[in-house]
Amino acid sequence: MTDALPADRPALLIDLGAVRRNFLIARDTYTGSSLGAVLKKDAYGLGTPRIAPLLHRLGCRDFWVADLDEAVELRRVLPHGRIFVLHGLAGYSLADFRAVGAIPVLLDAGEVARAAATVGEARPEVAIQLDTGINRLGLQLGDVRALAHDPSPLARLSIAAYVTHLARFADPAAPQNRWQWLRFRAWTQSLPPAPLSFCASAGTFGPRERHADLARVGSALYGVETTPSQPQPIIPAATLSAPILRVHDVPAGAEVGYGGVYHAPGPRRLAHVAAGYAAGIPFTFRHPWHVLLDGHRVPIVAGTSMSLMTIDVTDLPAHLAQPGRRVTVFGPDLPVHLLAEAAGVAPNVVMVAAGRGVRRVYRDPPTAVLVETPPGEMHAPELRDVRIAGAGRDI
Amino acid sequence: MTDALPADRPALLIDLGAVRRNFLIARDTYTGSSLGAVLKKDAYGLGTPRIAPLLHRLGCRDFWVADLDEAVELRRVLPHGRIFVLHGLAGYSLADFRAVGAIPVLLDAGEVARAAATVGEARPEVAIQLDTGINRLGLQLGDVRALAHDPSPLARLSIAAYVTHLARFADPAAPQNRWQWLRFRAWTQSLPPAPLSFCASAGTFGPRERHADLARVGSALYGVETTPSQPQPIIPAATLSAPILRVHDVPAGAEVGYGGVYHAPGPRRLAHVAAGYAAGIPFTFRHPWHVLLDGHRVPIVAGTSMSLMTIDVTDLPAHLAQPGRRVTVFGPDLPVHLLAEAAGVAPNVVMVAAGRGVRRVYRDPPTAVLVETPPGEMHAPELRDVRIAGAGRDI
Repeated sequence: MTDALPADRPALLIDLGAVRRNFLIARDTYTGSSLGAVLKKDAYGLGTPRIAPLLHRLGCRDFWVADLDEAVELRRVLPHGRIFVLHGLAGYSLADFRAVGAIPVLLDAGEVARAAATVGEARPEVAIQLDTGINRLGLQLGDVRALAHDPSPLARLSIAAYVTHLARFADPAAPQNRWQWLRFRAWTQSLPPAPLSFCASAGTFGPRERHADLARVGSALYGVETTPSQPQPIIPAATLSAPILRVHDVPAGAEVGYGGVYHAPGPRRLAHVAAGYAAGIPFTFRHPWHVLLDGHRVPIVAGTSMSLMTIDVTDLPAHLAQPGRRVTVFGPDLPVHLLAEAAGVAPNVVMVAAGRGVRRVYRDPPTAVLVETPPGEMHAPELRDVRIAGAGRDI
Repeated sequence: MTDALPADRPALLIDLGAVRRNFLIARDTYTGSSLGAVLKKDAYGLGTPRIAPLLHRLGCRDFWVADLDEAVELRRVLPHGRIFVLHGLAGYSLADFRAVGAIPVLLDAGEVARAAATVGEARPEVAIQLDTGINRLGLQLGDVRALAHDPSPLARLSIAAYVTHLARFADPAAPQNRWQWLRFRAWTQSLPPAPLSFCASAGTFGPRERHADLARVGSALYGVETTPSQPQPIIPAATLSAPILRVHDVPAGAEVGYGGVYHAPGPRRLAHVAAGYAAGIPFTFRHPWHVLLDGHRVPIVAGTSMSLMTIDVTDLPAHLAQPGRRVTVFGPDLPVHLLAEAAGVAPNVVMVAAGRGVRRVYRDPPTAVLVETPPGEMHAPELRDVRIAGAGRDI
């Protein structure tokens, strides 16, 4: 299927079938009432215009974004369904949110007071963030006590959900997760009743007794593992690949790349790949790391530059170490969380940058592949059919 | 001028006047025949559709991109001028390049042979990369010797330029720079004559005797310093800012952010800012770093998440530590190369990610500000006038 991908540059192949399966698996697992999707940052780089309608067709009705701008963009492709805005009012009014058809997740006591003081609408719909332990956004214990004592501000609002974020979602065994759950339960029991949103990806695959009512799932839909110690039953939905541009031999001691960051420890055969940090590849790695070429692990050497990276193909069969051959940077056989771990960043650092930096190619089994103009380009998205030569997911 | 920027999210303010001044300063400094512009990756995130026509109006006639896809996009907004494609043929034919009106920079002896074997066109125009020391793309000594011995392949081509890349551009005093220059001179003197392209940003502000004929300037146009030890007479053209969403006090020992990465060393006042790694902010820093708020340095604490970062506003005047106040992540008063250095990445890692990740606001003095739909969004670019309240560059 490589002939469906551009010959000279990286591509992000997005398997919509995998997104579909991940959503269904998560929904089957989740025991709450609504499994919602997080579509921040253009669906973590996978493309909200493709992801949102697909999930809506599967029955997803709650969608979560970061800010009102993202809500506006999402509403353009999603006529129905609720849109929660995690960054709260942030200077906008409830009327602004109503105009978009979005629900602000109020982020502190000041926003609750402002929302409650809004006149002209009977009980406007809001959600309320509670800060049960991450010390970031949300009401804290004192705020909750004040509202428990005098719930009249909340009586003027229609509360779609209480929301909290886990600080240690990546470590399901951490006691803090249980503490946050107990706090969340206790705090909300002192407030007017409303659905509880406690779980993101990790929580959805975590203890049922903490599932609560509304899940907000991002990473798991896109096949990004957030709890490597307790692997989730998901499959990677995105594959970043790029072609080799040049192969050549260097003698021992040769310096490669900007600043001469790599010194060849002996005579080596190197290949230069048409993808760099602008395609989401980390600038540096904490320990040796590799790409895949036809199942072989090929070490990354030298530094990552804007549009190029260098790999050592000395030990690769010669027929594979050729210009035009594509290497996989991450994908089903090389999960992005391992790449990210090697670089010391979160997996979604790579995902978001890749999705924005390279052309996205969608595979929507069983029928067609579409090439979408990437978001970094300068004209309107255009979809065109592309012949697909094979059906394998590893490219 | 903050009221021209979105209240709830980050923005990249691009000062087109600074780009203009940087281009003119570089051109005045450069003694070769043509100062060209590098527009890879959507002009390093600043937006090729705005940057390319601006430079062309100033007389720029040579433009450099990474691949044919970028050349296609550039040609849509640049009817005239030469477009050089640095990644060579990369599987495409000379006819593909001719159709776009682009010139491939052939990257190895194989590509030279393929180009020379192309029939149907009298002496097609190409450039040729020579690998004088970076060990990446380009012909090497053996290839040059072979062509010097038998130049007949080159006789079938019209050579627009010989091109080489410096490995140690960031260290103007490194002897390798002179070695690469001597090699470049010696190699090209053995080949059919053609203009020489030796200098990128650093070289343009470097020794005149190595200026050669064609410069390829990227970073300097956008105000990104590439030689901090010998500062260039350029001014930053991009300012990344984002608003505070919430301010609150935490007790000593409070854990903040995912994984509890930050422990408050005492009672602290924290602010959460609506910008994270999706806006180009590094995921981690190697040493303490800060943002600017009204001239004050405000420490970054905790980890960067997708859309949020946390700063310590304990020592900031209380009237400044308020939701809605914008902090500057980089800009004229906080150069991006210092931020990048603190994070252990190249400055353009940050620039490219920021330009793609957030809404771009253009200032084109003296008249107007335009808000452009960011490249990460899902609809066609739309330009609309926005009122601008002030004229200061520091926001």
